[in-house]
Amino acid sequence: MISFLPKEEKFFVFLTQQAENVMKASAFFKAAIKDGVLDEAEVKKIRDLEHEGDTLAHEITDMLNRTFITPIDREDIYDLANSLDDVLDLLNAMAGRMKLYKLNPKDEHFAQFIDLIDQAAEALANAVRHMPDTKRQRRVLDYCIEVNRLENLGDTLREKAISHLFENEKDPITVIKWKEIYESAEGALDNCEHVTKLIESIMVKHG
Amino acid sequence: MISFLPKEEKFFVFLTQQAENVMKASAFFKAAIKDGVLDEAEVKKIRDLEHEGDTLAHEITDMLNRTFITPIDREDIYDLANSLDDVLDLLNAMAGRMKLYKLNPKDEHFAQFIDLIDQAAEALANAVRHMPDTKRQRRVLDYCIEVNRLENLGDTLREKAISHLFENEKDPITVIKWKEIYESAEGALDNCEHVTKLIESIMVKHG
Amino acid sequence: MISFLPKEEKFFVFLTQQAENVMKASAFFKAAIKDGVLDEAEVKKIRDLEHEGDTLAHEITDMLNRTFITPIDREDIYDLANSLDDVLDLLNAMAGRMKLYKLNPKDEHFAQFIDLIDQAAEALANAVRHMPDTKRQRRVLDYCIEVNRLENLGDTLREKAISHLFENEKDPITVIKWKEIYESAEGALDNCEHVTKLIESIMVKHG
Repeated sequence: MISFLPKEEKFFVFLTQQAENVMKASAFFKAAIKDGVLDEAEVKKIRDLEHEGDTLAHEITDMLNRTFITPIDREDIYDLANSLDDVLDLLNAMAGRMKLYKLNPKDEHFAQFIDLIDQAAEALANAVRHMPDTKRQRRVLDYCIEVNRLENLGDTLREKAISHLFENEKDPITVIKWKEIYESAEGALDNCEHVTKLIESIMVKHG
Repeated sequence: MISFLPKEEKFFVFLTQQAENVMKASAFFKAAIKDGVLDEAEVKKIRDLEHEGDTLAHEITDMLNRTFITPIDREDIYDLANSLDDVLDLLNAMAGRMKLYKLNPKDEHFAQFIDLIDQAAEALANAVRHMPDTKRQRRVLDYCIEVNRLENLGDTLREKAISHLFENEKDPITVIKWKEIYESAEGALDNCEHVTKLIESIMVKHG
Repeated sequence: MISFLPKEEKFFVFLTQQAENVMKASAFFKAAIKDGVLDEAEVKKIRDLEHEGDTLAHEITDMLNRTFITPIDREDIYDLANSLDDVLDLLNAMAGRMKLYKLNPKDEHFAQFIDLIDQAAEALANAVRHMPDTKRQRRVLDYCIEVNRLENLGDTLREKAISHLFENEKDPITVIKWKEIYESAEGALDNCEHVTKLIESIMVKHG
């Protein structure tokens, strides 16, 4: 059922691991803010996951440098590893800035954003996991469509959140802070969609 | 005169249609704000054009998946379709946010931005339309240069608009809103320029 | 020691020149603000260097259009030339906005940012210079790692600078202005890192 040789499967194992890292970070983030607090240890845990992502991206690059034949173009594996890492970077940046800006994670719109990102990360991990399985190409596309659906919800949520912010928050500095956080959250969903575009373009090339 | 086989011409027909969609949206936007109001029906019309763009981008991807030989690299057709769609996305986002932020479209700098975007969209449509014509390659480059000229004007306009805003608007929340709109407008022009870079890089590859 | 034919070496000569332009602009910027003032002539000098960068990027594109065999893929040369130019664009934008926003370049965090960008530009120029030398590939990677290290310092500096800004600056309009400048500075470092990713991906392809 799997169409690639054992050695080359390792790339998909690594890429899947990278996608699962994103999922771990978003799931952890979601659980962490449930109690309305984001403490120093929780921010650190997200930072640690982000460092694991960096390490994994470098390992994938090293493996690319040592491998002669790759299942898909080397640049595409490289792009995929780095784009997944970009999602992780934004989650980490959001956690850090919440802390830095002394913002209260109880905010309803923020919790909804983290939930959307978490769902998108899960769909992405499923898409990447099924990529090497030539009989599941339709399913891979379905996961990509699911990510696009979540990204569209993110656009609507951003509008609602910013509109609510402008109407209810009178301190301009606080407006600036939350606006940045909401835009980073929307950016994380955009990055998830970017990963699906890479997956689709790889499938277009090999289709 | 046309150097590609009938079947493959379809890609250029679709890409040209995508570019014309961008042009339709910018021309409509420009006409809509002439009376100093952007009403709900007008925002919806721009949103509809943006949805058409999404549909077209997906049709192009589907066609890529079903076509064995393409006139230019599959990834390049894919990138071109999606980058044109990005311009449309930003026009749609601008219209939606004008409404959401309750901003007055009578603003002089805003009208000048929409005018620049409209001119750039027209030049882009002309560039894409002439791409398959091997005898018109010089003309394609001229349209690209015209887009770059408009993008440079956009940079200058942004400076003027933001400088005027900082000097005349005393409410920080209103400053935040208009600054975002002006930056989106400049971003739309940047995206137009990005499309010309794709066109140029395709011509470099096939040159 | 050099593995490419004379004619094709020219691309690396041009790319190195482009990287050195970035270095010149950052070094000049750093020296210019030493006295705590950024005057009109200094802003103009940075703008001139940016125009030289644009011209060089176009010359590289023209040369690509006239050359049949290139040492690395044409698109990669094209991307590299344009990404180096992006760093220059941001330096120019920062200088222009400092002036436009009437900000005082005496700001400590700003000076630290310019210093980081200057170090990154120097490492980039060294990386590009050694690319054609097949015996120095390890050294090229070391310069890339150095750029990544500086980009990480930039992330930390951004946090410090924004945190300091939010705590000490009470005028929201001034907060908006400096926040944009710091984010452009961080963006310039991100662009430097992007160039290293291009270099790494070229080395992955040819590895």
